[in-house]
Amino acid sequence: MRRRTGRRPGDTQTRDAILDAARRHFADHGYRGATMRGIARDAGVDPALIHHFFGRKIDLFRATIDAILAPTELVPRLLRNRHGGADPSAGGAAFMLRRWQDPEQRLQLLAMLRAAATDDEAAAILRDVVHRDVIGAVPQAGEGDDTRVGIGLLGSHVLGLALLRNIVQLPVLIAEDIERLAAILERAHPMDRVLPRGTRVGGLEPAAATHAESA
Amino acid sequence: MRRRTGRRPGDTQTRDAILDAARRHFADHGYRGATMRGIARDAGVDPALIHHFFGRKIDLFRATIDAILAPTELVPRLLRNRHGGADPSAGGAAFMLRRWQDPEQRLQLLAMLRAAATDDEAAAILRDVVHRDVIGAVPQAGEGDDTRVGIGLLGSHVLGLALLRNIVQLPVLIAEDIERLAAILERAHPMDRVLPRGTRVGGLEPAAATHAESA
Repeated sequence: MRRRTGRRPGDTQTRDAILDAARRHFADHGYRGATMRGIARDAGVDPALIHHFFGRKIDLFRATIDAILAPTELVPRLLRNRHGGADPSAGGAAFMLRRWQDPEQRLQLLAMLRAAATDDEAAAILRDVVHRDVIGAVPQAGEGDDTRVGIGLLGSHVLGLALLRNIVQLPVLIAEDIERLAAILERAHPMDRVLPRGTRVGGLEPAAATHAESA
Repeated sequence: MRRRTGRRPGDTQTRDAILDAARRHFADHGYRGATMRGIARDAGVDPALIHHFFGRKIDLFRATIDAILAPTELVPRLLRNRHGGADPSAGGAAFMLRRWQDPEQRLQLLAMLRAAATDDEAAAILRDVVHRDVIGAVPQAGEGDDTRVGIGLLGSHVLGLALLRNIVQLPVLIAEDIERLAAILERAHPMDRVLPRGTRVGGLEPAAATHAESA
């Protein structure tokens, strides 16, 4: 729900101000500790306005996760290296690792990781965004296509790296250049070629949606 | 500090009982919420006895992380596939993923992840165990040897997988057989061959200790 028709000019600014306040508030207080009243106060708006734009707290948290994972920008980049793409530095891992170099983005990422690690409801929202908006946006090429498993594996590696590099601060990973790490991850996860071709991979229903944007 | 000389017969049982109680207590209350008094009560011993065996809360938490990561068992398995080892299912990733299939072990693992994600002190202990007892136990073969970076990358993948599979419960990863995931991870992380040979990797001091056990 990026944009709706019939929106008045000031709406986008108000919406962005609420989203900014929400991201900071979730980072400071965690998912469970955050309140709509507190976010409204931080954003300088009436709580009813947040409800008007985003619905409940769970919907607002989902909007912040969308802003961190950016599925519509991420998916085409993931697919770029689907068939052993030419440039590993243009893939999905590079996109995410670079994106999270921005201090504000990293703060949000860590808040998301912390919330998902400790709160079942927050974990469910992260699952839903990755499952539906990232993995669900990838067209299934056939029975033996492992792209979706590959994305799940790449995602686990990128998030684990964020955990060990930024939260645990493991020296051997901190010492590594982010561009080099991105290249390693792209090479380690060649999407549809993670598993031997033709191997059956079950458990995921067919893609529900396909993004209009493409690489 | 696995075993000391001059220990009386009942000591090992008492020590194990305290460790069991501590693992459950940390899982239930997190690192910050756990108290030595509470652990003593759960274990049915005097708090002074815990202090005698383990020292402070931070030392006791470290002992539980040791029990989860099992560095002395893990390191030889990590090195087994160092030079493109014969059997990927015998490597370090397979060892950890299989180990965490045990419900009790998995509970402890998730408690460790949650504590490390939310508590700086707990994160520092996890960093210390991985940096010193796992990565530090790997002999550096020379300037171009990337084994330690490889272990850091494998570790980030294994922990990220635990996060997305067990906490976030991403369907596409839950659907995968653990043996297959282990094989994929072993293949994706061939230890010393993660990066092109001869590339300089800095930032880690020479190995402080080498485990006597070997594959």
